[in-house]
Amino acid sequence: MGLFSYDIQSFDDLFVHTLRDIYYAENQILKALPKMIDKATNPELKSGFQSHLRETEVHVTRLERVFQMLGIEASGVDCPAIDGIIKESNEIASEVADKEVLDAALAAAGQAVEHYEMTRYGTLIAWSKRLGRADVAALLKQTLDEEKAADQKLTSIAEKTLNLRATA
Amino acid sequence: MGLFSYDIQSFDDLFVHTLRDIYYAENQILKALPKMIDKATNPELKSGFQSHLRETEVHVTRLERVFQMLGIEASGVDCPAIDGIIKESNEIASEVADKEVLDAALAAAGQAVEHYEMTRYGTLIAWSKRLGRADVAALLKQTLDEEKAADQKLTSIAEKTLNLRATA
Repeated sequence: MGLFSYDIQSFDDLFVHTLRDIYYAENQILKALPKMIDKATNPELKSGFQSHLRETEVHVTRLERVFQMLGIEASGVDCPAIDGIIKESNEIASEVADKEVLDAALAAAGQAVEHYEMTRYGTLIAWSKRLGRADVAALLKQTLDEEKAADQKLTSIAEKTLNLRATA
Repeated sequence: MGLFSYDIQSFDDLFVHTLRDIYYAENQILKALPKMIDKATNPELKSGFQSHLRETEVHVTRLERVFQMLGIEASGVDCPAIDGIIKESNEIASEVADKEVLDAALAAAGQAVEHYEMTRYGTLIAWSKRLGRADVAALLKQTLDEEKAADQKLTSIAEKTLNLRATA
């Protein structure tokens, strides 16, 4: 981004900027997930993160396809939001000794990541429809549905297993 | 937070830490919203942010009541996640010249804030139930419902008005 200049002139620019934001975010999540898998103790949580890692690889490829469809280079822009969410997740994980309390913290951190992705994909889908790109919207919708499912899976793991154990 | 020490020993500690995280976040949102109100042009968006500012004041008071119910001091802890989300919102706003494109960017930024709050309150409600504090859960649920309504209102404003105008 430029200083003292308006780099986003049109709605198209805003769309591409937001696409680059989530592309950067997905790549950061790809780096963060293996650490979360390592730290997780609960088998269901660990396997949930593992399957989300595989999904995230698909999400990155899907975004690259969107860039291609729009005829623009696949590149990221800094996304302080996801950096902050991941930083907070790392900080909290380093503060917790008890494995089951750590699992609860990791599940909550995972849900914060999912929610960030959900809001960005929701926005991009609405915008791509307005820009007359139903094809792009349909592709992004697949990812949004997977993010929502991942969030619900974490809710279910957290509610049924982790929290009960963590208070035991 | 301490360095080289595990400050969160129990599930209770994790709950209080997360409560302090959202308390800090709500206070940062309270500071950020007036700038978003100033920048917004669309009257519906402006009034949406204004009413959310009043709601946010209530959310802060409600959290202070929760601290009181738990017999602990109302204080915040650094929350890199909300700092990142607000930083990103300010950065994008400074990049956009066109007023209607800026409105679309602001609505999306507002939704990112709402989603962060939704995930944290969702977690806190689940945890407070597990900790046997249905009274706390009920209070936090009121806030969660208001955050969800604020997000839906932003979706509706964005879909019906802003995006159409921004592409016009």
